[in-house]
Amino acid sequence: STKLRKYIISPYDSHYRAWQIFLILLVIFSAWICPFELAFMRHLPRHLYIADNIVNAFFAIDIVLTFFVAYLNKETYLLVDDPKKIAARYITTWFIFDVCSTAPYQPIGRLFRKQENGLAIRLLNMLRLWRLRRVSSLFARLEKDIRFNYFWTRCTKLTAVTLFAVHCAACFNYLIADRYRHPMETWIGSEMPDFKMQSLWTRYVTAIYWSITTLTTTGYGDLHAVNTQEKLFDIFYMLFNLGLTAYIIGNMTNLVVHGTSRTRNFRDTVQAASQFAARNQLPRQIKDQMVSHIIIRFKTEGLKQQEMLASLPKGIRSNIAYNLFFPIVEKAYLFKGVSFSFIFQLITEMQAEYFPPTEDVILQNEASSDMYIVVSGELDMRAYVCGTCQIYRTVGEGEIFGEIGILCDSPQPFTFHTRELSQLLRLSKSSLMNAMKENLEDSTIVMNNFFQKL
Amino acid sequence: STKLRKYIISPYDSHYRAWQIFLILLVIFSAWICPFELAFMRHLPRHLYIADNIVNAFFAIDIVLTFFVAYLNKETYLLVDDPKKIAARYITTWFIFDVCSTAPYQPIGRLFRKQENGLAIRLLNMLRLWRLRRVSSLFARLEKDIRFNYFWTRCTKLTAVTLFAVHCAACFNYLIADRYRHPMETWIGSEMPDFKMQSLWTRYVTAIYWSITTLTTTGYGDLHAVNTQEKLFDIFYMLFNLGLTAYIIGNMTNLVVHGTSRTRNFRDTVQAASQFAARNQLPRQIKDQMVSHIIIRFKTEGLKQQEMLASLPKGIRSNIAYNLFFPIVEKAYLFKGVSFSFIFQLITEMQAEYFPPTEDVILQNEASSDMYIVVSGELDMRAYVCGTCQIYRTVGEGEIFGEIGILCDSPQPFTFHTRELSQLLRLSKSSLMNAMKENLEDSTIVMNNFFQKL
Amino acid sequence: STKLRKYIISPYDSHYRAWQIFLILLVIFSAWICPFELAFMRHLPRHLYIADNIVNAFFAIDIVLTFFVAYLNKETYLLVDDPKKIAARYITTWFIFDVCSTAPYQPIGRLFRKQENGLAIRLLNMLRLWRLRRVSSLFARLEKDIRFNYFWTRCTKLTAVTLFAVHCAACFNYLIADRYRHPMETWIGSEMPDFKMQSLWTRYVTAIYWSITTLTTTGYGDLHAVNTQEKLFDIFYMLFNLGLTAYIIGNMTNLVVHGTSRTRNFRDTVQAASQFAARNQLPRQIKDQMVSHIIIRFKTEGLKQQEMLASLPKGIRSNIAYNLFFPIVEKAYLFKGVSFSFIFQLITEMQAEYFPPTEDVILQNEASSDMYIVVSGELDMRAYVCGTCQIYRTVGEGEIFGEIGILCDSPQPFTFHTRELSQLLRLSKSSLMNAMKENLEDSTIVMNNFFQKL
Amino acid sequence: STKLRKYIISPYDSHYRAWQIFLILLVIFSAWICPFELAFMRHLPRHLYIADNIVNAFFAIDIVLTFFVAYLNKETYLLVDDPKKIAARYITTWFIFDVCSTAPYQPIGRLFRKQENGLAIRLLNMLRLWRLRRVSSLFARLEKDIRFNYFWTRCTKLTAVTLFAVHCAACFNYLIADRYRHPMETWIGSEMPDFKMQSLWTRYVTAIYWSITTLTTTGYGDLHAVNTQEKLFDIFYMLFNLGLTAYIIGNMTNLVVHGTSRTRNFRDTVQAASQFAARNQLPRQIKDQMVSHIIIRFKTEGLKQQEMLASLPKGIRSNIAYNLFFPIVEKAYLFKGVSFSFIFQLITEMQAEYFPPTEDVILQNEASSDMYIVVSGELDMRAYVCGTCQIYRTVGEGEIFGEIGILCDSPQPFTFHTRELSQLLRLSKSSLMNAMKENLEDSTIVMNNFFQKL
Repeated sequence: STKLRKYIISPYDSHYRAWQIFLILLVIFSAWICPFELAFMRHLPRHLYIADNIVNAFFAIDIVLTFFVAYLNKETYLLVDDPKKIAARYITTWFIFDVCSTAPYQPIGRLFRKQENGLAIRLLNMLRLWRLRRVSSLFARLEKDIRFNYFWTRCTKLTAVTLFAVHCAACFNYLIADRYRHPMETWIGSEMPDFKMQSLWTRYVTAIYWSITTLTTTGYGDLHAVNTQEKLFDIFYMLFNLGLTAYIIGNMTNLVVHGTSRTRNFRDTVQAASQFAARNQLPRQIKDQMVSHIIIRFKTEGLKQQEMLASLPKGIRSNIAYNLFFPIVEKAYLFKGVSFSFIFQLITEMQAEYFPPTEDVILQNEASSDMYIVVSGELDMRAYVCGTCQIYRTVGEGEIFGEIGILCDSPQPFTFHTRELSQLLRLSKSSLMNAMKENLEDSTIVMNNFFQKL
Repeated sequence: STKLRKYIISPYDSHYRAWQIFLILLVIFSAWICPFELAFMRHLPRHLYIADNIVNAFFAIDIVLTFFVAYLNKETYLLVDDPKKIAARYITTWFIFDVCSTAPYQPIGRLFRKQENGLAIRLLNMLRLWRLRRVSSLFARLEKDIRFNYFWTRCTKLTAVTLFAVHCAACFNYLIADRYRHPMETWIGSEMPDFKMQSLWTRYVTAIYWSITTLTTTGYGDLHAVNTQEKLFDIFYMLFNLGLTAYIIGNMTNLVVHGTSRTRNFRDTVQAASQFAARNQLPRQIKDQMVSHIIIRFKTEGLKQQEMLASLPKGIRSNIAYNLFFPIVEKAYLFKGVSFSFIFQLITEMQAEYFPPTEDVILQNEASSDMYIVVSGELDMRAYVCGTCQIYRTVGEGEIFGEIGILCDSPQPFTFHTRELSQLLRLSKSSLMNAMKENLEDSTIVMNNFFQKL
Repeated sequence: STKLRKYIISPYDSHYRAWQIFLILLVIFSAWICPFELAFMRHLPRHLYIADNIVNAFFAIDIVLTFFVAYLNKETYLLVDDPKKIAARYITTWFIFDVCSTAPYQPIGRLFRKQENGLAIRLLNMLRLWRLRRVSSLFARLEKDIRFNYFWTRCTKLTAVTLFAVHCAACFNYLIADRYRHPMETWIGSEMPDFKMQSLWTRYVTAIYWSITTLTTTGYGDLHAVNTQEKLFDIFYMLFNLGLTAYIIGNMTNLVVHGTSRTRNFRDTVQAASQFAARNQLPRQIKDQMVSHIIIRFKTEGLKQQEMLASLPKGIRSNIAYNLFFPIVEKAYLFKGVSFSFIFQLITEMQAEYFPPTEDVILQNEASSDMYIVVSGELDMRAYVCGTCQIYRTVGEGEIFGEIGILCDSPQPFTFHTRELSQLLRLSKSSLMNAMKENLEDSTIVMNNFFQKL
Repeated sequence: STKLRKYIISPYDSHYRAWQIFLILLVIFSAWICPFELAFMRHLPRHLYIADNIVNAFFAIDIVLTFFVAYLNKETYLLVDDPKKIAARYITTWFIFDVCSTAPYQPIGRLFRKQENGLAIRLLNMLRLWRLRRVSSLFARLEKDIRFNYFWTRCTKLTAVTLFAVHCAACFNYLIADRYRHPMETWIGSEMPDFKMQSLWTRYVTAIYWSITTLTTTGYGDLHAVNTQEKLFDIFYMLFNLGLTAYIIGNMTNLVVHGTSRTRNFRDTVQAASQFAARNQLPRQIKDQMVSHIIIRFKTEGLKQQEMLASLPKGIRSNIAYNLFFPIVEKAYLFKGVSFSFIFQLITEMQAEYFPPTEDVILQNEASSDMYIVVSGELDMRAYVCGTCQIYRTVGEGEIFGEIGILCDSPQPFTFHTRELSQLLRLSKSSLMNAMKENLEDSTIVMNNFFQKL
């Protein structure tokens, strides 16, 4: 939203982003066509020659454009829009690589040697692959963007790397066979003696088939290195494959471990509750309360939620509490007429909790330590009198319970038992007492409200 | 237990669950027969045709039934039994897929084209595989159900996925060979020239054998892709295999890491104790006490038990404490005659602990911070007087010790040493003092009990 | 050490342990010989027949012996030596399996059918493999025993499982080939047409070679399934291998992650310190202090040490503190003449810490919160007076520093700087003040000691 | 920096380090040449013979040198420079191994048997591989050195181990083939009947090609074990490979898990914030505040930073705080004229925090618990008066805000809202109050400063 100088584009500009995405598509095309031309194209067809040069032109435009794009200073987190600084940064970092990967080697070759696709030119063309750094940084960005699923982003990245490796290896291996002096003593010639007569499609599929057979270590053996050059290439390719396969498995393990952590955590917690209940021979009803509470907690609370909230600064937490709790708390009978700042102080100390049906929130006679406001759901107010359980009334939305024990400083006189899934706001005795001590006027209003109700 | 409208079935109804399990079996049959028919059945035998249609009929019944099954609202966690809402939800989600996967393509094909198993019909039949989502959701449910072992649930799921992948690949690969114009230039024909004459069993086993040889990357090479179509299929299958193998290994790693975490945790803790003792040249007897305490703790306490208990709301924790400790505490001499609510307050603050034999629970002269009630086991009461150790008496079940130091506000006058595995309830000085401050009458009774004993 | 009834053996008895180890050796022999006899021995040689029966005799003895071995009750952690309970437990659990796996099938076969090694007998012999549960429980025990390295225990277990799987598969695959009606159409016959004439050694090595080639998914293809029976067996073996390989990799990953966790933790902590220093442009000397402190801490403190100590009960912790700190603290000038129980109270609150050379332990003018006793090493006492740093004196073993700030309730008047690696006992202000408040007499002595020194 | 005796070299001496690095290069040469000579060199060429002996000479020098190198005592962390102790330690540990791995077996062999490279000599030469322990300890050191990237250090180590294993296996397998009585019945002879006539290069590449084909389990099958000896060797090599592959994958998984943990942690935290905001229908603006705060925190705070700082001793933490905060705090208006030690006490309690733009640091009416000093950035001071928001003024570098609420003991009268990325020092109410209570004079100055500003 900050205003930049004239002619300077923000890197977050939506048109610039679209242009970058368009370039990514061209990069993918380049990455595929470069090794393919190297291996299979002794003479470059006219339409490919034109396509290559158009793609190069787009990247040349991008080089010019980069001089007009602001960048984010890593120390101040501010966009820098000074053209001199932008130029200095670009020229000292990637400018030279970008120029080398964009230079039109084929037209130059044609000018000098009357041959636009000699091996030297084709090898220089491989510099185009430098453009892949754009794909790499795209993935780095996607991984940090929670709008994209982490699992699929990583899988796409790994698949892209694998396919590129397979394609490159297929092309290079074909190149070796194509240039070997005895065509019959090559990996493809020993199986398909007339391979140079075959269609481009057949040769490419065969090369890819060999490549992937080797990468996945299937190794049927129908196509295998025959001469020393091929063996050498195979040695390096297999070593690389070992690393790549290990990297793929490592990533998958990482994803699986991460993806199942929530389920495992849930299982472990439920199991701990079951085992604890079994070992101590707790009645079935308490065990059920424990398990259903754990289930509700896992359903209503995100992974790391508590930790995340605790790490936020107090200003944001107050803001959240205000949005969540103020409308409910200001309507509660106990806080009728008190000052805004008193309620504000209380809500920053409140905690929202979910209780499943048929669970005891407060037990009769237990030490009073918390009071609750009902956000949603219904509870029974019960008491054991002379050994029989009596239900006095139902506590519903917006009502307060547990305040008697706290304000009279006595054990809780009633049991409160949920009838359905209930969301409650919990306020601890100490928080309420501190707030009342600091605001004597409001404190009197609260006590008045309380005695009026009694 | 909530009552639903007439004609509406609860998704937790046991009959409905049984029906779902029955459908799962039919799904497994469908998943196996669909690719098999596609590849190996040019003409469908009469009994298979009938079986297919019966299976379809069952799924058609299930589609109708779904309109009468209540669903759980994800926001309120209540069952919705309004037929209109149920219908609206089903039609907007999976209805259309279910209908497509159940339509009787073979009878329709017979009506129109006098041929019930043409390739088009057989390909349409593959829509049956949509039913597999039932298996997928079954596994998702089983994984969260602690009655089933997580390790074996995951292994079964992975095995099922692997077998299905192997079966499908075998069928598709055979289909390609079966339809290729030169039977001899196929993966099966080059090894078994008369393969179309072979028995269904031989052909199926050979196809599965090729499929699994490729999936496990064994790749003997006796059967391998020969023509370009097969090579293309093989390329995709091997790429898929790479992902599947990585996924299997990732899952197994996850399971192994999870399965051994308790043992590793135990080892690390014991090792920390041993190393600490060695580095500080502690006497052997103290080292043994440390190690045996760690062993008992790992045996008597579940993984995550402390964390699980801490996360439960106060109501449930009070309930647990009441069930576990009340019968013991009310019989203790110190609490004879005190009010119910006083004991209730104390037990919510108590902690159950296990001590292995020959361990010091309290040391003479140490600052008094806790008192203990013996739940089970026996302890010696010792004191060092003039340098010699004297055993005064044995403390047994239901007795209290350590209270002298707390109530007299002095260092502990005696050492207490376990004679056998003992379970003790620990009550901290501050908890007792707070409770006594708040209940002056009970406090007097406690002090009276204490002085009478002295 | 507990006394058992007459004729009842403790499971921890060293002779019984030795007997168990001896049986483990016999189990390994059984596990190897059973599949081997099944596959390669049409007629059992005399010496093998005798060896088998001797081994069986030993296991028969063990069955009888088990009736006289006490067991540990899982609930009370006490040894049960009641012969009736022992017998009841054994008969209801593993007795029947043990008997079946020990019955002498070969002599019985000879009695009835005049043939001691028919296929039926040999298959019954496979019940011997039940004995492997002893190996399994041995490994479970070794994994929890910190005298054995976890890495090598797990590796040995995995190697044993792998070798057993390879051996079994080799034997079964040979059995299939040996019994197939066309010897030439088998996996071994197609490569080695006269395989039945070959030596036992050649046949066994070839079978193992095939087995391991398949298990490791190398799959050269020189030996591969030829007939449908072999293909079926291969399918199951490869499926099993997929699981076994994943299990091996999962275990290795687990071990690697566990084994490197300490190094990674160390690196992360040092890196955090370096980055923090770099980001905040802290002087080089402070950065060095941070890093060298982290290095010393990792060298002197075991993984999980803090956590382990915190989980021990107070009795043990007091005992440890007494052993570690008492001899040093009682000699310190400040505590000359105070009561034993006062020192005892202090040492339970002390913490041992290591400081690398040239590190500031206390800074002049900082709020006084701790005092230190030097266990080993030397420190300089410095002060900045009028902007120049003056070294007053050297503080050595057994001396106290930092007490001036605490007892005078003022900021620290001096900087204390380590000259070499120093071990210090830290005592916090609040712990000392509490102890002095509770022990007024000792408090006077301490203050006297302090003033006398001043 | 400590001074050592004459003629004794420190192990940290830069020349000695360079010598060690030079020896590492010789070790790599030895490790490659030893198996190579064993397999491929029936007769050792003159230049290799000389090179071997020169290398041995260097290692002989190192043996002598080791007697003059001080070592670090593991208990006192001091360098030991007593020649007797150095000698005793070396002779009792690795001296004998070093001598055996350096003895000139070839010259000795030539003396006695007129043949410098018989098989016995060549096998004795394999003792040279003991030198590899130097490489092993180099890697152990590099892994703990944060100047080297952990990922690449581990990858280099694994690659080195893999290449060495491949090289050794290639050499041994060739040795077996070379010495087999029927050259045609060997793994290499069956494919390349005239292999003994081939160039060294071709034979070596073929051997390596077989080795790596087997290690990566590709197993084309063009080269495979033919005779029983080769099969036996292959069995052990494949078993070893299974372990090595699992080890490589385990390491890679470890590295991937570690490398992605920061990103995953970031994603989980942002996701928790998003889900929390969505579930509670928080306004978009609060959600944006939460997310941008999390992003800033992850960018400005290293992994484990909090934990690392907490584990440092108080002296270092005070030193850090002094360096970071003193220049800013002493210029703040509130602390004009107070004593140095008062400021010193405050800064040890301060926390540096970053706030992204447009975030509320303090909310009007919230309970006052902290005051802030602006290190960098700008904030708006706002208040809602009669329902409209008024911006009073801008708070810039070096200014204090939030102190009114704290010093008047009232709720905060203003909202403070960041305008750009701001770094703030937070000081909690309780820390300030404690410091003021302990320093009454400074307290009066602070209150005077405060009232003067009001």
